[in-house]
Amino acid sequence: MASDAVVLLSGGLDSYTAAAIAREEGFRLFALTVRYGQRHSREIEAARAVARWLGVARHVELDVDLSAFGGSSLTSDIPVPKDRPIAVTGTTALAANEIPSTYVPARNTVFLSLALGWAEVLDASDIFIGVNALDYSGYPDCRPEYIAAFERLASLATAKGVKGGAFRIHAPLQMLTKAQIIRKGLALGLDYGLTHSCYDPDAQGRPCGRCDSCTLRAAGFAQAGVADPVLSR
Amino acid sequence: MASDAVVLLSGGLDSYTAAAIAREEGFRLFALTVRYGQRHSREIEAARAVARWLGVARHVELDVDLSAFGGSSLTSDIPVPKDRPIAVTGTTALAANEIPSTYVPARNTVFLSLALGWAEVLDASDIFIGVNALDYSGYPDCRPEYIAAFERLASLATAKGVKGGAFRIHAPLQMLTKAQIIRKGLALGLDYGLTHSCYDPDAQGRPCGRCDSCTLRAAGFAQAGVADPVLSR
Repeated sequence: MASDAVVLLSGGLDSYTAAAIAREEGFRLFALTVRYGQRHSREIEAARAVARWLGVARHVELDVDLSAFGGSSLTSDIPVPKDRPIAVTGTTALAANEIPSTYVPARNTVFLSLALGWAEVLDASDIFIGVNALDYSGYPDCRPEYIAAFERLASLATAKGVKGGAFRIHAPLQMLTKAQIIRKGLALGLDYGLTHSCYDPDAQGRPCGRCDSCTLRAAGFAQAGVADPVLSR
Repeated sequence: MASDAVVLLSGGLDSYTAAAIAREEGFRLFALTVRYGQRHSREIEAARAVARWLGVARHVELDVDLSAFGGSSLTSDIPVPKDRPIAVTGTTALAANEIPSTYVPARNTVFLSLALGWAEVLDASDIFIGVNALDYSGYPDCRPEYIAAFERLASLATAKGVKGGAFRIHAPLQMLTKAQIIRKGLALGLDYGLTHSCYDPDAQGRPCGRCDSCTLRAAGFAQAGVADPVLSR
């Protein structure tokens, strides 16, 4: 019987790829999408499409309105930065220690906590999250030492841990560049036309092409030597 | 100027006391109450009353529907256990390693993650949570090693941590019995008549008197040698 895994699914290409890797490894997928007060719902539609494509056992969409706290351009009136120069070679996408305004305080900790709660109910030991090397230098909660610390916390936090069990937090994209992620996903047959990455889409849900997320995505497809199917629609 | 602290406020007597200790220590309070799908709203009313009494700078009530995952008698149809024998001397309130069905998987991790996100937005370094010794043996996420692990995670998880800052997770009731907590609170002038502890109140919001929470509360007031003002109403 297949083991169960909780996969965090945002609707972007990273979490889609991470979930597909989990499926490839033989896990039955329980997908969690958190509606955290981001300004656009296009992401949620993409998460639904991706969950359907993956054939997940269950998809839970959970509202957690982080805009109650503010503090990020993704959840408040702070403008999303545009047209920033981004070096896309290697893993130093953004200047070291520069935290962009799109950082949502403690977001991945909130997401992983929710995934942990669901995993414990399901008696699943595995959680997949699509954090990757390109986010590494910009978002503190995408770093390997953070993921390792959460894994340790998970065992202390839960009944399963008290009974001697442990959780594994899988971040299979951790050390990959965006181009490597895209190549991996294409090798798995993924349809990236289902995904949405833009931080600031227009009213029709079309990507702006100028935010960090659009810039990283475009550079990733360019480096991978393939066209982004979202842009050809 | 007073430092700011985020305090988790449930409406029960522990979190009220922990918040009052924070106030006594000179912090300006930002209270967070999570509506996590518990079956009764009496707790939320109590949290509002307590927040008013404390004169908090702001009170955020956040919906996070953990009942989407189930797995606890507090968020699903699993019956709340009643009339269980509980030893209230010392810190072994429940049998070692026995996790009651009222345990909500990863609840404190979800709560602390949300508090952490708000603290970072506020540029506050201090978070107060009312976990205590009586919960110790029953709920894994009330243990001191868990709180210490979360404190370490908090620095890795945040922009503040990357910049060399740190968070303090205060659990001032950690090593106190329920009677000691009550004595401490009464010394601070608290009105425990505002609070609500019962896991399974009736339609009018009156405590059942038979769940673990009612039993522990009654034993605490008895040991402290004072009447519970909630019962004399």
